[in-house]
Amino acid sequence: MYNLAFMPSLAQLDRKVLWHPFTQQTEWEKGIHEDILVISRGRGAYLYDSKGKRYFDAVSSLWVNLFGHNEPSIDRAVERQLKRVAHSTFLGLTHEPGIRLAKELLAVAPKNLSRVFYSDNGSTAVEVALKMAFQYHAQAPGGRTRSRFLTLKNSYHGDTLGAVSVGGIGLFHKKFRPLLFKNHTVMSPHCAPCPHNKRPPARLEDYEYRGEDPRPGDSREKTACRWECLGQAEAVLKKHSKEIAATVVEPVVQGAGGMLTAPPGYLKGLSRLCRKYRVLLIVDEVATGFGRTGKVFACGLEDVLPDILCAAKGISGGYLPLAATLATEKIYNAFLGRYEDFKTFFHGHSYTGNPLACSAGLASLALLKKRLKSASFKGTLKAFRDGLARLSRLPRVRQARSAGLMAGVEIVGDEKERAGKKICMKLREYGVLMRPLGNVLVLVPPLSSTSKEIGSLMDRVSHAIREH
Amino acid sequence: MYNLAFMPSLAQLDRKVLWHPFTQQTEWEKGIHEDILVISRGRGAYLYDSKGKRYFDAVSSLWVNLFGHNEPSIDRAVERQLKRVAHSTFLGLTHEPGIRLAKELLAVAPKNLSRVFYSDNGSTAVEVALKMAFQYHAQAPGGRTRSRFLTLKNSYHGDTLGAVSVGGIGLFHKKFRPLLFKNHTVMSPHCAPCPHNKRPPARLEDYEYRGEDPRPGDSREKTACRWECLGQAEAVLKKHSKEIAATVVEPVVQGAGGMLTAPPGYLKGLSRLCRKYRVLLIVDEVATGFGRTGKVFACGLEDVLPDILCAAKGISGGYLPLAATLATEKIYNAFLGRYEDFKTFFHGHSYTGNPLACSAGLASLALLKKRLKSASFKGTLKAFRDGLARLSRLPRVRQARSAGLMAGVEIVGDEKERAGKKICMKLREYGVLMRPLGNVLVLVPPLSSTSKEIGSLMDRVSHAIREH
Repeated sequence: MYNLAFMPSLAQLDRKVLWHPFTQQTEWEKGIHEDILVISRGRGAYLYDSKGKRYFDAVSSLWVNLFGHNEPSIDRAVERQLKRVAHSTFLGLTHEPGIRLAKELLAVAPKNLSRVFYSDNGSTAVEVALKMAFQYHAQAPGGRTRSRFLTLKNSYHGDTLGAVSVGGIGLFHKKFRPLLFKNHTVMSPHCAPCPHNKRPPARLEDYEYRGEDPRPGDSREKTACRWECLGQAEAVLKKHSKEIAATVVEPVVQGAGGMLTAPPGYLKGLSRLCRKYRVLLIVDEVATGFGRTGKVFACGLEDVLPDILCAAKGISGGYLPLAATLATEKIYNAFLGRYEDFKTFFHGHSYTGNPLACSAGLASLALLKKRLKSASFKGTLKAFRDGLARLSRLPRVRQARSAGLMAGVEIVGDEKERAGKKICMKLREYGVLMRPLGNVLVLVPPLSSTSKEIGSLMDRVSHAIREH
Repeated sequence: MYNLAFMPSLAQLDRKVLWHPFTQQTEWEKGIHEDILVISRGRGAYLYDSKGKRYFDAVSSLWVNLFGHNEPSIDRAVERQLKRVAHSTFLGLTHEPGIRLAKELLAVAPKNLSRVFYSDNGSTAVEVALKMAFQYHAQAPGGRTRSRFLTLKNSYHGDTLGAVSVGGIGLFHKKFRPLLFKNHTVMSPHCAPCPHNKRPPARLEDYEYRGEDPRPGDSREKTACRWECLGQAEAVLKKHSKEIAATVVEPVVQGAGGMLTAPPGYLKGLSRLCRKYRVLLIVDEVATGFGRTGKVFACGLEDVLPDILCAAKGISGGYLPLAATLATEKIYNAFLGRYEDFKTFFHGHSYTGNPLACSAGLASLALLKKRLKSASFKGTLKAFRDGLARLSRLPRVRQARSAGLMAGVEIVGDEKERAGKKICMKLREYGVLMRPLGNVLVLVPPLSSTSKEIGSLMDRVSHAIREH
């Protein structure tokens, strides 16, 4: 059993044996900025450390948790499946939780998607998408090898080398360049630092993209913005479409890049360009999926129909590693044939479609469908927006940007000052767990948060920023 | 609850919504070779389909299961952790199951390894290893960029594009070449098809590698084998060591390549070459780890001390997706520094160190330590070897090769005849689940199998081969 007296040495042991992800271990080992926090249990939107202190989980345990910790219906689903079988392979066999979750995922996904390929995390979901797109072009009738992708600056699609190849964050990706394949990269659709026009978009319909032929009512007639971001994408597609397998994009929000929001209409415009130049569209909904933006998938905000959709993080409600890559029947069909044609998609992971994770996913998805329709969720969204509006008026805040329940609050000042880190450490004192991205505070609370909890979170964030 | 009446349509639904890994879906959908088998529960070494038929799980659910399904002590560990918290992030926080499992892993790993970096599957464990080795050389004192790896033909290290880059199986890897980085690839150490010498090794000490200077007693004096496989590796290392970050090898058995066993001494010899030419040694123990070869890690068979070790599959006892990359303190130290030096290993997955999976891993590792020392396990190993010896005398068997409880039984004939597949389908009738690799039957039973179960398995395999 859990032994509280043993607790102090757990942190010491951690320092000796572990290597934490995305962590400068010198700081971690020496306790620079922070003491090591050992999380011992969770309940609802709260986590408790080994000393019993309670924290609001303001980043949903790295954007994965949807309905809080120890959510009874998900617990029950996992327990029930555990009594049957924890795992059975998806190579050559199948099982009920895997089948049923696939059906439910397709029911809430963009309607053109018809096939579910499971894997274990966001990186592998993206790798599957890249390999599918590549192999699709080589095998499709009249197809040919296309070995580049259209990618965006500031994008993040995971840490395996294929996913790194399509990423656009210098700090994470640049040093591995000799191991990466080459792509065509265009500007990020984030408006604030746009060199062309700093005016933010007003209404969605003002920004509807109409291709190369601006018509009356086109946004580009009305504002200084000429959709230069889409223009760059189109210039590349026009010149190189024959070698580009797919465009890869985080829809609506570039997450790890700093919670950078794209203007309404961008995704729709990019999707139209892909169709026009016959390039596949891969949307990476790993961070944005499962209600974070207010819709099940961010694609739904602009009625975009991608060819391939990557899902992970929230797919299991934040309980267990699981991912899925969804594809259209057209893509799937290009892989059919006799065995000896070798058109098979030779990709798979040992725990693909793990029954425990799929069972958690089914329970979570049932909660999600109810939650998104509920009046209380609208209240939560409103509290979140209102709180961000208040934060954006603080002198130390450069911008507070959001989509649904995902927000980045950018603090003014040089990154070297580590303002993000310091404010998050202050927030720990106030009982809030948060992890920044450079100077950007990241707020991604569980979807189940009440408007009261959100209000209280915003008050504490505001306080910590002002104290800084 | 589980509804048996619903069962028939589960298979139909599967055909409509799923895309299975490593599966030609035309065959799957049309039921060529096989009907779709829906697994509904497990108990010990057995899985049960939706009709209640029982099968011996002869491939341990794709080489992951160690102690059978619904093993009480692992079930309890998962349930207990589920009551605390299913998941909490390892980015900036820590938790007891993750710390304790790391400690236990290091206690059974080669003694020079001191740090555990978690991820979710074998592919990511390898990607972490490749990126660590690459970044290590760039950051180590006096280091420089080394962007190639020494790899082996017939090797398999996973399906993400970095892992594919170091793989050597044409069928899986060749078509993705435009997306892969280049490496130096040398011959596989599998003796049977060796163009230099077909005589298998006699005793380990005969084959001890002594570098370039054969001395009396050196195996190369006694047999036709001149360690040409190591010679090829040495030739490449001599010429290119300055650009090679690491050698990547599946120790003792190349799994997906066809259960190809290396002669005793090869791993030791390769390890000495790596030290001599100052190239890191990465051992991929994803398939061989956790007792499959009779030792906790296959490295232990030849007392090899790798710089980096990749573990997955059996790490959670076959319950949940989990992986770990273990590294030496020397490698770890090259990533230390001030934050602004940007030496951090910027890699991580959302569910890294998932507490439920780590709890399963702890319970499984406790069982493993006992099992490997037990007399009954020795009996199981003996029954396995004896059974394989019997199989190897069948006229249709070209070779039965094994290490511990991993075996490949190669059937004579053209691969196009799909003998492996057909025999496995016959075995289903006999209540055995098995998945072949081309013409090779793969036998990887749970470590908990009794000698009686192994005997019965071998009888049924023998029967199915003779029937074929």
